Amino acid sequence: MSKAVPLPVTRLIEALSRLPGIGPKSASRLTYYLLRAPDELSHTLAEALSELKSQTRYCSVCYNITEEDPCAICADTQRDSTQVVVVEEPLDVLAVERTGAFQGRYHVLHGALSPVEGIGPEDLKIGELVRRVQQGGILEIIIATNPGVEGDATAMYLQRQLTPLGVKVTRLARGLPTGGDLEYVDSVTLLRALQGRHEM
Amino acid sequence: MSKAVPLPVTRLIEALSRLPGIGPKSASRLTYYLLRAPDELSHTLAEALSELKSQTRYCSVCYNITEEDPCAICADTQRDSTQVVVVEEPLDVLAVERTGAFQGRYHVLHGALSPVEGIGPEDLKIGELVRRVQQGGILEIIIATNPGVEGDATAMYLQRQLTPLGVKVTRLARGLPTGGDLEYVDSVTLLRALQGRHEM
Repeated sequence: MSKAVPLPVTRLIEALSRLPGIGPKSASRLTYYLLRAPDELSHTLAEALSELKSQTRYCSVCYNITEEDPCAICADTQRDSTQVVVVEEPLDVLAVERTGAFQGRYHVLHGALSPVEGIGPEDLKIGELVRRVQQGGILEIIIATNPGVEGDATAMYLQRQLTPLGVKVTRLARGLPTGGDLEYVDSVTLLRALQGRHEM
Repeated sequence: MSKAVPLPVTRLIEALSRLPGIGPKSASRLTYYLLRAPDELSHTLAEALSELKSQTRYCSVCYNITEEDPCAICADTQRDSTQVVVVEEPLDVLAVERTGAFQGRYHVLHGALSPVEGIGPEDLKIGELVRRVQQGGILEIIIATNPGVEGDATAMYLQRQLTPLGVKVTRLARGLPTGGDLEYVDSVTLLRALQGRHEM
């Protein structure tokens, strides 16, 4: 970069540019915003960043991100431990929690099967899920992997692994998104909605 | 936030949400990306953030952000010290430097006059610019404040302050942006382009 830019500024711009969705332009704008903002903001950010990894770990039961092991959901005796929603990422747990409609437990795979990216079953928390089911007490595994090629492949793989263990394996319904417009729905979604039609 | 989210995660999401252009959703996505990314990334970011303010200061000549005082541009004896481009923000210095067409010096006002936001001349580095001109050696002040109401007001104010000091005060040309489409140009820009038309 030009010598009009001091090194600490360049360093932050470069670090921010490595984040997804933040290009060099947004990175500069954020950096110069931080320069003008009160010291407290960059200080808070720096502290939150250093504590993010040092003060969190994976829950040894569900592999969600947590401060305490087991996590708050796994430790909550009020929740139904017979139902487990299986998701790809920790953010998906949040999405399901926001519906307020699920009172069971979770299992975070930390990805989906992807031959293209070389991600196999051993790279995901699948063995851990199988062992959880083998320990007993789980009646239903609700697969909530993403509705796409990799999520579908992962769901199929899990179904084949888990059904022999005598557990009920279900998957989230596919169809039209609520609030969407039929005209703009892609044909795969529409096909799945047709296939999944039910009597009223 | 739900108890599915550990405190260090919430803290980073909240801190990131305070940045311009980053809403709660992007903040969550960035945070969970950092959780999955190598420790080195969040460490580099945290370090760059803490060094951003501690290792930079304002240049005592031009008020650009710098590590060394005076800044690299003010210290560069190869550059023409008779011409000074006046800009609102440090990022504007970069924009002018990128043209490669200016070999003079800069002056950063750190804002523009704005009665609405209560920003008066004493809140900007205007007195400092006046003193720079009074010290002599500057032949032309090129005002490059933003082409809008506040930038225009600031330009007018500067022109009234500086012209009596015997310095030439110019302003960047206004007109059609290169590569734009006449059909989509706003009417104010088109008006300024018409007013500024020149013989070919």
